[in-house]
Amino acid sequence: MIDLNLIGKKYGPISFKYTWKDVVLYALGIGAQAEELPFIYENTKGGLRVFPSFSVLMGIDLFMELFKDMKVEFSRFIHGEQAIKLYRPIPPEGKTLIEGGITNIYDKGKGALIVWRMKVMTEGGEPLAEAESGIFYVGEGGFGGDPGPKTESLEPPEGTEPDFTASYFIPENQAALYRLNGDINPLHVDPDFAKMGGFSRPILHGLCTYGYAVRAILHKACDGDVKRFKEFKARLSGVVYPGESLVTEGWMDKGGRYLIQSRTNRGVVLSHAYARVE
Amino acid sequence: MIDLNLIGKKYGPISFKYTWKDVVLYALGIGAQAEELPFIYENTKGGLRVFPSFSVLMGIDLFMELFKDMKVEFSRFIHGEQAIKLYRPIPPEGKTLIEGGITNIYDKGKGALIVWRMKVMTEGGEPLAEAESGIFYVGEGGFGGDPGPKTESLEPPEGTEPDFTASYFIPENQAALYRLNGDINPLHVDPDFAKMGGFSRPILHGLCTYGYAVRAILHKACDGDVKRFKEFKARLSGVVYPGESLVTEGWMDKGGRYLIQSRTNRGVVLSHAYARVE
Repeated sequence: MIDLNLIGKKYGPISFKYTWKDVVLYALGIGAQAEELPFIYENTKGGLRVFPSFSVLMGIDLFMELFKDMKVEFSRFIHGEQAIKLYRPIPPEGKTLIEGGITNIYDKGKGALIVWRMKVMTEGGEPLAEAESGIFYVGEGGFGGDPGPKTESLEPPEGTEPDFTASYFIPENQAALYRLNGDINPLHVDPDFAKMGGFSRPILHGLCTYGYAVRAILHKACDGDVKRFKEFKARLSGVVYPGESLVTEGWMDKGGRYLIQSRTNRGVVLSHAYARVE
Repeated sequence: MIDLNLIGKKYGPISFKYTWKDVVLYALGIGAQAEELPFIYENTKGGLRVFPSFSVLMGIDLFMELFKDMKVEFSRFIHGEQAIKLYRPIPPEGKTLIEGGITNIYDKGKGALIVWRMKVMTEGGEPLAEAESGIFYVGEGGFGGDPGPKTESLEPPEGTEPDFTASYFIPENQAALYRLNGDINPLHVDPDFAKMGGFSRPILHGLCTYGYAVRAILHKACDGDVKRFKEFKARLSGVVYPGESLVTEGWMDKGGRYLIQSRTNRGVVLSHAYARVE
């Protein structure tokens, strides 16, 4: 049983210290290539750039504190949705402050949807980023709670060519690399564990798929300029296996946003998604 | 000018602390794939295995001490030869002790060949591994010294099929990943720096090529059993570019060794090489 009293409890602030090696490891973890030099080389002209989704990673330790309070089973957690908002580019090294908490727990019938919101600040307290994660806790619904608002569907316009397309091949060992960033759930490396979870083999981290989409948006819609990347919200609606290609497409929306969708050969894996860029 | 008085000077012991993440990062840095689970998963049955060449990495900090004493230019150093000898499998995490020193400086005319020998011990002082590196210092020969012994040529037998062949594709971003292990020479990531060094683009670390050969030997001649891997000596005779395929071949020798050679499409890159396995 989820303790609904956890709603509103404050976590942190805790500090997150990192060096350029953490930044580059993350960039390589979401597939950055040699030609993306500003993201993988610490002495690149103009300084090392940080992929905006690195901000989500900063919250892992804080999220683990929540985890202990919830006394839940790791294996029944599914990362369902993720949103980030950037206030300024993430520095290439240093220390940030993280605070967060559960803003809601919705009753989705088959499970509970836990909404975890997090703020990332500079050491001086200036806002750097905000992130909201929707975590589905399988089997914990039906407690008579509010099902929550319906997610905006954000369907891509039918029959319209996307304004950008990025296709990235995800190597077989990508999840093994990504997990060095901190999420060491064995589901992403151990074939036996993956089978117990109902998968034919280890799956890619949902946040790794999300990171690949961020990379696509940043290069195709922001010309690689991290200052232009403002917001990205998405549902992680399908599983990606290492060894597959991930195609991310974007359609310019009326409201000055891009509607985003990612898919593999097997179907859509990232949906209900938009990005806001400048 | 190289100070020949450095011959015989002792360095260390210093300690090297590492976790499973360092071991896995190294394994991925030399191209380990998802199916090489014992080398990339910390909770694998029987415990995480460590590639024998990880021992060379342990000496980077100690080698940097020598570097300071030598007051040399990094850009004129070429890693020419590498040998390792294993006394027992490397533990998956913990602390080792490293000591080393220059055993000789040979006058090769165009450059000086610095022979750096290093011992790796357990915390209790038990021998774990020994390594010898031949470092070519361009432009520093001609000082009237001994040219040193001729390296055994170890040519593969002509017209004979190898006893094993392993072909590994090296991804474009492999050197960017490998450098996170500690050797952050910009030659391996920065295109401008590579051009100044006379290369069309960044090259793979010599020790990364060496690591790929170790992986080949371990899987093809030792059935993946690190206990069977005893010794590997090689000359790094050619440059590898990320994006190339590396083929490593082994021929069983009369003396119970394998003669080893690695090549890309452009020619031989690792030669004068043998491995001793059990």
